Amino acid sequence: MPHMLNVTARQELISKILDTLMIVVEDARFDFEEDGLTVRVVDSSHVAMIKLTVDAAAFDGWELDAKKIGLEMKKIREVTTLGGSGDLIEISHQDGQDFTMSLGKIVRNLRPLDNATMASPPSLPKLDLPCKIIMNGAELGQALKAAKQVGDLVNFSIDESSFKVHVRNNTDSVNISFDKDEMDELVCDGAARSQYSLTYLEPLSRRFGPSDKVTIQFGENFPLAMNFTFEDGAGEVDYFLAPRVESDY
Amino acid sequence: MPHMLNVTARQELISKILDTLMIVVEDARFDFEEDGLTVRVVDSSHVAMIKLTVDAAAFDGWELDAKKIGLEMKKIREVTTLGGSGDLIEISHQDGQDFTMSLGKIVRNLRPLDNATMASPPSLPKLDLPCKIIMNGAELGQALKAAKQVGDLVNFSIDESSFKVHVRNNTDSVNISFDKDEMDELVCDGAARSQYSLTYLEPLSRRFGPSDKVTIQFGENFPLAMNFTFEDGAGEVDYFLAPRVESDY
Amino acid sequence: MPHMLNVTARQELISKILDTLMIVVEDARFDFEEDGLTVRVVDSSHVAMIKLTVDAAAFDGWELDAKKIGLEMKKIREVTTLGGSGDLIEISHQDGQDFTMSLGKIVRNLRPLDNATMASPPSLPKLDLPCKIIMNGAELGQALKAAKQVGDLVNFSIDESSFKVHVRNNTDSVNISFDKDEMDELVCDGAARSQYSLTYLEPLSRRFGPSDKVTIQFGENFPLAMNFTFEDGAGEVDYFLAPRVESDY
Repeated sequence: MPHMLNVTARQELISKILDTLMIVVEDARFDFEEDGLTVRVVDSSHVAMIKLTVDAAAFDGWELDAKKIGLEMKKIREVTTLGGSGDLIEISHQDGQDFTMSLGKIVRNLRPLDNATMASPPSLPKLDLPCKIIMNGAELGQALKAAKQVGDLVNFSIDESSFKVHVRNNTDSVNISFDKDEMDELVCDGAARSQYSLTYLEPLSRRFGPSDKVTIQFGENFPLAMNFTFEDGAGEVDYFLAPRVESDY
Repeated sequence: MPHMLNVTARQELISKILDTLMIVVEDARFDFEEDGLTVRVVDSSHVAMIKLTVDAAAFDGWELDAKKIGLEMKKIREVTTLGGSGDLIEISHQDGQDFTMSLGKIVRNLRPLDNATMASPPSLPKLDLPCKIIMNGAELGQALKAAKQVGDLVNFSIDESSFKVHVRNNTDSVNISFDKDEMDELVCDGAARSQYSLTYLEPLSRRFGPSDKVTIQFGENFPLAMNFTFEDGAGEVDYFLAPRVESDY
Repeated sequence: MPHMLNVTARQELISKILDTLMIVVEDARFDFEEDGLTVRVVDSSHVAMIKLTVDAAAFDGWELDAKKIGLEMKKIREVTTLGGSGDLIEISHQDGQDFTMSLGKIVRNLRPLDNATMASPPSLPKLDLPCKIIMNGAELGQALKAAKQVGDLVNFSIDESSFKVHVRNNTDSVNISFDKDEMDELVCDGAARSQYSLTYLEPLSRRFGPSDKVTIQFGENFPLAMNFTFEDGAGEVDYFLAPRVESDY
């Protein structure tokens, strides 16, 4: 019997999923499983990697046999523009057939991408990162926006008492310092500094609301790991970004 | 004695007239008559034709001897951008002189186009179209917007029980089906199907509010006739669109 | 001891200063003095000149030794985009060091321009202009916007009883006439007419609110002098514009 899938989601949930994934890629394989959705993507230069999961409970309908479906996200986005944030979008698929999205009376069918020819979703790194902070997402977003005004690479530095965001170009610099007591948590044994591309970080600055929390982990010339949730914790994003080390120049 | 014209209209009435006509043409001949305004236009490839009428009663002032005045509509639009929807625009003209629009203290004069060198307004076809529906304008607008995401040509099909909007390209399709009982009226003796250009239909999708009604008539490879009113029925639009028949390819 | 400067301003005050100056130039020398800020700028073709002053009292903090600092205004603008209109921006500078702007936790440092290589701020002309009006700024703004729809040069004409704004091109014209009793003041001994570039005037049309007053002075082929205030009179702009005389063609 062919595997079937019938899922219903509010337009705003789908929009949030796309807002995050489309920072890094245009196409993605959506892994629908019994207890929820998982999407893992990596950009073509293997610098930024995202694992996004959404519990089945965040959806308004969730009946399916597990399946993995490759999709062009700009087409999903088109359907979301036909409705408002609270409108329901019904998604259905049967093996070998089109992927179908319904919003009100609109039925959009699209051919899934061929999983065999798509790049495999990335394996997530097991990282043991020495420093960790938990901070306000909107404050981080404002810092990343300010950083992008001065350059394309941002320096994150940390020690026992503060986390700093810093960018310098020939004439200008921007510095943002968060003291330990201005954040929800700061755990770091020794000083560390690392540099990351704002190309993949700055778009996140528009992603966070005033009460969102973000967890950041990194170390000296180590990858950056960010974690944040949405939909009252039913959705979760793990974001990994390779460091830009000096020998890259 | 030269013919005179003194007409006053709210900015939003003029904007609605332009919003419709400018889907099809940039210049139009405005026929001012004792009981109201009539404008008939056809696009340069003779695919889309509009007859728009507005009763004199929809205007805040209407004193004139009948006259036909050719106008560049983007200039009329410029004047509307100087005010808000409720602002009054006074229009006056005397034969052989400039066409004058006043908004507040602004007086804009523009030279009418030469009726002798303008294309004659089209004669409206007498069509006996076999199928007719009356439906919600906003729902039609959403369907046309969804259709445009997939292609430039839309298929309308109809039978005794439903009206369908359908577009297909190499990988995608969009289908919207309206059952007879979801519309205000459906009258159709036999099944019919016809294809139309979205270039002239899709811009209408932004034209309709949630309580607007639209009448649609067509038949197998027949022209499409749409009719809708505005200003509580004082304004009326007849919209004709030639079918795209297969031999056109 | 090096001269120091510590100034605090609401984001909206800085935005208003930039909105005016950036009509004419990109870089400007900001002269901070004990009682307030003065900026004088002239465009590269020496057609438009602005003297802008803001009383120290309009700022939320004002501690400084007098100093003149050359700045790229687009960088100041970037900092304003990081906050809302009521957010406070702290500005500090010590001789030979960076110019620093802080908004919330963001600290942006930028290297001042070298006053030695900047063009000297213009000397303001002592003008004895024969005609003067005081009028509503929003009405003037609407007139300038309408004028720009028809051409790039505007004619101002005046006599004992009215002030007129007029533009004509090959097919169109726009006329706006303000009678003496529709303005706050009109003083003019004889008729005068002069032509000015809308390139530097029209952007002001977005500058005025419905209760703003503008003083305009000019004469036959004389420069135009405009004066208006903001921040309840704590900020003042003197705007000079050279006439476009016929021999310029």
